[in-house]
Amino acid sequence: MKVGIIDHIDSAHCIPDHDTCSEMHGHTYTIEVEVTGKKREEGMVIDFVELKKIVREVLEKYDHKVLNNIMEVPTCENLTEDMRKGLEKRIDMPFTLKVWEGKNKWVEM
Amino acid sequence: MKVGIIDHIDSAHCIPDHDTCSEMHGHTYTIEVEVTGKKREEGMVIDFVELKKIVREVLEKYDHKVLNNIMEVPTCENLTEDMRKGLEKRIDMPFTLKVWEGKNKWVEM
Amino acid sequence: MKVGIIDHIDSAHCIPDHDTCSEMHGHTYTIEVEVTGKKREEGMVIDFVELKKIVREVLEKYDHKVLNNIMEVPTCENLTEDMRKGLEKRIDMPFTLKVWEGKNKWVEM
Repeated sequence: MKVGIIDHIDSAHCIPDHDTCSEMHGHTYTIEVEVTGKKREEGMVIDFVELKKIVREVLEKYDHKVLNNIMEVPTCENLTEDMRKGLEKRIDMPFTLKVWEGKNKWVEM
Repeated sequence: MKVGIIDHIDSAHCIPDHDTCSEMHGHTYTIEVEVTGKKREEGMVIDFVELKKIVREVLEKYDHKVLNNIMEVPTCENLTEDMRKGLEKRIDMPFTLKVWEGKNKWVEM
Repeated sequence: MKVGIIDHIDSAHCIPDHDTCSEMHGHTYTIEVEVTGKKREEGMVIDFVELKKIVREVLEKYDHKVLNNIMEVPTCENLTEDMRKGLEKRIDMPFTLKVWEGKNKWVEM
């Protein structure tokens, strides 16, 4: 059984030396975290409230920040990889992470 | 090939003894059903209209109802499990069921 | 790692001999293409801009067109299959294609 939640961050970034993305700009990123586990006795795999809290704490690092201050090249791929490392320290179930950069593009791992 | 449809139900529920969800409240649930099958001669795996009709009939049990009258603890996990049983009686293809409780959280099985 | 983008087309179609879809009508189709690959040195699996450009070029065949002039029975399944063939000629990575016919139904392959 899979359980997922959505959260958002608003961050600035630029991709150095990129044709169209080299000037500082920003996105509302949509973050989807989906864990896989068994339903426990109380009828939940994980409490949505608990999962949201964990994800929110991990996202604080990026929300309303300039991502270039956190990593050298903040492509959506590098951002997703970095977030995943943070989440892995906090979530003890298999999970997938999908990061939408704006509305029409995403990275999943 | 996978074919999916979306439907909605509006239901009330509360989760007894839960910190923030123990008072009766409601959600618009979004229901996604995706079947897997081969394309038939007429160019369809299953007619969208037929799939929607089947799903709608199964959903009538929950739409505009108090879910606590149907099951003891209507977590999204228990609701999804119950719905899946109803759908399995009507759909003879492998399928996945994704139930969104509101906009930002879901269960899939 | 998976990387995806969304594009749209507006097309007309009818399904001959279908109960409710035999008269010419139209949809805004939402097209999701998700490729699977390894992150390259510059921090990307594929540049979103490049993937969007490829998909857009393949979609020109269908956008603002009558799909019945392209294929005999333009069900969403047949459309998806035809698009996939076009994309396979241009994308050299494994990918999935999800085609939404309007807002609440889709085909994926």
